[in-house]
Amino acid sequence: MVQRSALLDIAFGALADTTRRRVLERLGRGDASISELAGAFDMTLTGMKKHVQVLEDAGLVTTEKIGRVRHCRLGPRRLEQETAWIAQYQSMLEARYDRLAAFLERTQGESP
Amino acid sequence: MVQRSALLDIAFGALADTTRRRVLERLGRGDASISELAGAFDMTLTGMKKHVQVLEDAGLVTTEKIGRVRHCRLGPRRLEQETAWIAQYQSMLEARYDRLAAFLERTQGESP
Repeated sequence: MVQRSALLDIAFGALADTTRRRVLERLGRGDASISELAGAFDMTLTGMKKHVQVLEDAGLVTTEKIGRVRHCRLGPRRLEQETAWIAQYQSMLEARYDRLAAFLERTQGESP
Repeated sequence: MVQRSALLDIAFGALADTTRRRVLERLGRGDASISELAGAFDMTLTGMKKHVQVLEDAGLVTTEKIGRVRHCRLGPRRLEQETAWIAQYQSMLEARYDRLAAFLERTQGESP
């Protein structure tokens, strides 16, 4: 459970940055080297390496060094646990609104 | 678009912490004051105030001060944009796997 929580912390943290989400979207259209990503986002190699490292730590990106070039591709994690957490949260919210609506209906029924 | 990205940054950042997710889950079971939350999570008032502030900035929690007590409840945001982003990402991943599978099938069909 603690381990799963830590994974969620890391994955949501990785998603909490516009550039990193755009890097994931870019890799969805095809693999790319870190220097290609740096060029596409008008960023220094060092800056892009840091973002890719965060994504790699979260399991959202896999990198492989071939010769002098580090290639990036999506995976292996697919945000399934994150989706599950949000879905559970939303159904809890729904239940809460339903209870509130039922309460309002009941108390309004009681008024003269 | 930029504004929407900033919202996603803030919301995913708010979710990137086990305690904050647990506070949301706790508020799903009923409203609570900051001191009740601090007690439930065995945390100082100051520490809990910071977490609640992050959740409030993300629109995930609303607080209201009544007398000397600050009450917290869920909302108004419901993580709909965050769900949409993840869903779009996952369908992109699916498409990518499908293309890879189709490529492998084609190239295997070509082998003797």
